[in-house]
Formats: sequence, structure tokens, C-alpha cells
Amino acid sequence: MKNKFLFTCGDINGIGPEISLKLFRQLLKSKSSEHYIFICPANVFGYYQKLLKLNFPYKVISNPEESSTHQLNLLAMSDAGLKVGTPTKVSGRVAYESLLTAIRILKSKKASAVITAPTSKYSFELAGINYPGQTEILATECNTKNFLMMFLSRKMIAALATIHIPIKEVSRSLTVKLLRTKIQVLLESLINDLGIIEPKISILGLNPHAGEQGRIGDEENEKIIPAIKEFGKNVYGPFVPDAFFANHLYKNYDAVMGMYHDEVLIPFKMLNFNNGVNFTAGLPIIRTSPDHGTAFDIAGKGIADYTSILSAYRYARTISANRFKSEG
Amino acid sequence: MKNKFLFTCGDINGIGPEISLKLFRQLLKSKSSEHYIFICPANVFGYYQKLLKLNFPYKVISNPEESSTHQLNLLAMSDAGLKVGTPTKVSGRVAYESLLTAIRILKSKKASAVITAPTSKYSFELAGINYPGQTEILATECNTKNFLMMFLSRKMIAALATIHIPIKEVSRSLTVKLLRTKIQVLLESLINDLGIIEPKISILGLNPHAGEQGRIGDEENEKIIPAIKEFGKNVYGPFVPDAFFANHLYKNYDAVMGMYHDEVLIPFKMLNFNNGVNFTAGLPIIRTSPDHGTAFDIAGKGIADYTSILSAYRYARTISANRFKSEG
Repeated sequence: MKNKFLFTCGDINGIGPEISLKLFRQLLKSKSSEHYIFICPANVFGYYQKLLKLNFPYKVISNPEESSTHQLNLLAMSDAGLKVGTPTKVSGRVAYESLLTAIRILKSKKASAVITAPTSKYSFELAGINYPGQTEILATECNTKNFLMMFLSRKMIAALATIHIPIKEVSRSLTVKLLRTKIQVLLESLINDLGIIEPKISILGLNPHAGEQGRIGDEENEKIIPAIKEFGKNVYGPFVPDAFFANHLYKNYDAVMGMYHDEVLIPFKMLNFNNGVNFTAGLPIIRTSPDHGTAFDIAGKGIADYTSILSAYRYARTISANRFKSEG
Repeated sequence: MKNKFLFTCGDINGIGPEISLKLFRQLLKSKSSEHYIFICPANVFGYYQKLLKLNFPYKVISNPEESSTHQLNLLAMSDAGLKVGTPTKVSGRVAYESLLTAIRILKSKKASAVITAPTSKYSFELAGINYPGQTEILATECNTKNFLMMFLSRKMIAALATIHIPIKEVSRSLTVKLLRTKIQVLLESLINDLGIIEPKISILGLNPHAGEQGRIGDEENEKIIPAIKEFGKNVYGPFVPDAFFANHLYKNYDAVMGMYHDEVLIPFKMLNFNNGVNFTAGLPIIRTSPDHGTAFDIAGKGIADYTSILSAYRYARTISANRFKSEG
């Protein structure tokens, strides 16, 4: 199972199927011992195959264990109505089911990792699926609160202490306990998933100028510094957020953890455009994802860029290799 | 008075005097009809002149009106004890007095603008001066609350709705009234100070994904959108913060206003390193400043870079020319 990679279709009306098929075209050029299992309705696969004029060999399977004769395998879901460019109840439902199927296969250890295509919060809502994103679905299905949203790229590896919550709730959400857990997950992930020996982690402050010794907010003194101190020489900070990025201090650390979404995502995306990789650390299964959305505005036009999902696949492969090695 | 520019010494134990003298050396190379008045203790001026081996002509004056025969004039403050590289009570006091002198001269319309060298909050505290920074001193001395902290560069012009307050207080501080005032000051400053006809302003959201239509926080719907709507075609937003910078949308607008310090300062400093210019809009007087600190660690070593104060001087000149033109 170490060489089987799952791919979800994501929102079938977004660019997910297109970038996945473009990636498969690329991957099939080199004969490897890897197997790719695309979890997608057969009609959607056919539609995008025709659109992109792709004629590669693949096998339709109904069970991941059948995926040993072909590099590319289509684990066919029931046909689903397409409405390219528009989030629908159907596309929300299909995206969710594709992800659940992948999680089920991974839990039974019949594949090594999943690369998830982008989904739409709006389609999820139309389908009555109340999650802010796939990360939270994965955490629920894996029954863990100790997950960590990470962003991977060659320029910077970043992690979020809090994710999709209003700015006014960030201070309340930050506790020494939460930070301890998130830092611990980050540390373990850098070691076990990314193969970094003795990682050095930088932690950003929450407030302007990292609070200036308590002059601008007390979270640094009361929460962040105590959490950092528990870890000793692997963890440093809190750093002044703007100066940290202005002076490229992230180059001196294996990873940076920020306290809230945009403190990390603004600089990460400025450095990587939309070509970073989203990784959910702390789960028993391995999941990476391109760091961009469904891009409904360009769906079905054949112009979507598959760079980010290619990076997501490469990180999934690296993380699998490292994790299975460390698991013996 | 249109061609008289004031320069404060800033913290005399930081790099302020050094970068000012390096700037004067540069400015004196071209004979212009401009006059520069440096407000600094004579011994400090002498110390750095010797350190940098500068032999340029200047005149010691005790009144700004005497500054008409020489390009460079030293408005000599009483000698002050130097302790290069260390913030002291004396350096805090001198920085404050240099600034107050500049404000007094500008209020009496005997000069066109001031370029302020960096000061230290710590020295201010040692001297019993309780301001978070020079911006707030200027606002108090000019008796206005309608000031706006702006950051100027060729790549991006940015403004802050809130400045040096803890993250947890940002939501409470943001009101439609505050945003209306800040946007109005920004609009007027772009027109009158920077000479931009029909400026287009972008406003960032506060929350992750700009709140996703109320799913992640309500400040966008309740405060930011109502404030934007009052302005019609000059003001756009609220934009999703990380996507705004990832997709370089700032290139489509004359200025961007963010809701809190690091939402603006992280991207601004990533684009401009420490070479941006800090400008206080909304005051009756003109003040610009380099966008970096006192750099005590390299003070007195002769290695400080004067690029940022040069930009600050150039913006002060541009803003003076525009404002006095628009004042008739």
C-alpha cells in the first residue's frame, strides 16, 4: 500500500478534476511502481478527459485492492450532474463523499496518502454539510482535536495556531494548552513527516511588535512565552511579526507558527503565490492539498494550472516515505 | 518657507544623526535653493560629523529665519551626553524636544515639512514621556484625532485603521465612524498630498477570508461594508486579506487600508524591506519618517543605510509641493 495514492475529485464544478487529470497525464509519462486511485464519478472523469483530449490508459475499479495492474485507476462514484463553474448541492455532496471514501480507504491502510482537490464551502452548505473546510472533516472523521493546519513550500513551512475563527476570538482561543499541543504536533510532524532532525521552530507574537513586553497586549507574556519555554532549544520566539518577514528570519528556521490565519497566510502566499501546499498534520492518515480554491471562474476552460496539486502530490509522497520509515 | 525642510535628530544614541548626516552629504552635492534645518545638540552633530569624516559647510543658527544663507543649518540644541548604542533618559528627552521644536516651527509656518529620525519607546519611557510613538505626539500637539498612519513606497501605499493596540481590542475599536474618518483622511491625502486625481482605495477585511459573508465574524457586514458604501466609486472592498496580496491586487489601487497593524505591515515590509516611508496624514503640518527603528545595535559604526530617510525626504518634498499648490 506504500505506493498507492488517492486523489479526491473535490468540487466537480470547479477546477479539481481538470488539475487532477493534468497531473495524471504528467505522472503517467514516467513508468513508476506507483498506483493512483482517482475517486470521482465516471461521467465527470469522461467529461474532463474529453475536454482535455487525454487518451491515457486507466482501469475502472470498485475496490482499491483492484488497483494493481494499472498506474491510473478510477474508483468510480455514481454519475453526478455537472454544472461547470457553479457550486451546487450535487457538487457539494460528491466532494464530501469522495473525501469520506478516501478517509475510509486510508483508515483501513489500503493506500498511503490522499491528495484532496479543492472544495467549496458554499457547495457544502447547499448540501447541508456544515464544515468550514476539508481539514475539519478530516479531524472529525479521524476523531482528533490535535490536528494542525500546515502550509508547505520550499521557501517556508508554516503552521496556524488558530484557523477559521474571527479575529476578535483569537485571544480567547489561545491558551497555553492549545499552543503546547500545536507546537508538539508541529515538532513531531517536522521530524516524522518531513524528516528534519532537531527542527528549529519560530513562533510569532500575536500583537503589534509582539506586544512590546506587555505594553501592547499580554498574550505574549501570559500564553506564548510560557508555551515556548516548555520546549527548550527547539522552539524560539515570540518574534515581532512584521520584522520577522521583513528581515527574512523564516530562512533561519525549519518552520514558523503564527497565531492567526492572515498572520501566516499573507506572507506565505506572497512568497508562494497559490503554489503552496496545505497539509493536515497530527492525523493518523496523510493528506495534502493544493493551496488554492475551486476557481469556478476558470472551471471547464482547460486553462487551470496544476503546479500546486503536483507539489501536493510530491509532498504526500515525501511524507509517506518518511512516516512509514519512522513507523518501521 | 516652501523650500525649508526640518530634520529632527531622533534618538541621539541610535542611527538617527548618522543617517541624517549621510543624507545631508548627498543633498549638498547638488546646489539647490532648498534649506535644511537639523534640530540637534551641537556636540552630537560634531561627534557624528567627525565619525563620518564629513567636511561640508553649514551654519549654526538659533532661529529658523536665519537659515537663508546656507543650504545646511544646525538649529543647535543644548549639548547632551551621548551613550551611543544605548537608550537613555537624556536621549529620550532630546528626541522629544527636537520633535516639539520642529512642530512649533511648522505651526508658525516657518518651514514646509519635517523629516523625523527614529526614536525609541524605551528612551521615551526613561524620560517619562508616555507616548507609543512620534505619530501620537504629533496628533496631540496638533490637537487632532483625525490622523492616519500611512506607509509610502513606489510599490504600495498603505494606511492603518488602528495602530498600536492589542489584537483583542481591534474589533471593539473599529466603528463605522472611525472607518469613515480614516477613509476620508486617506482620500483627501491621496488627492491633496500625493496629487492623485480620483484615487481608488481598497479596504481589507478584518477576518480570515474577509469574514465569508458573516460566517467568520460580523465586522465586515456591520462596520466595514457600511463605511465603504458611504464613499461610492472611490472606495472598494472589503478584500480577502491573503488573496489580495497573493494576487497582487494592490497594484490595481492607489492605496490599501488595513484594519490592524500587521495586516498591513507584514506585506508592506515584505515588499519594501525597511525602505518604506512613514507618513502621518490628516495633520495641519507635514511629517514623514523612515520606516525603521533606532537600530541601537549598529549605532556609531558608520554602517547605517540612509536609503529610507532619503525616501522620507523625497516624499516630504512631493507632499509639500502638492499641498501648497492645492492650498493656492
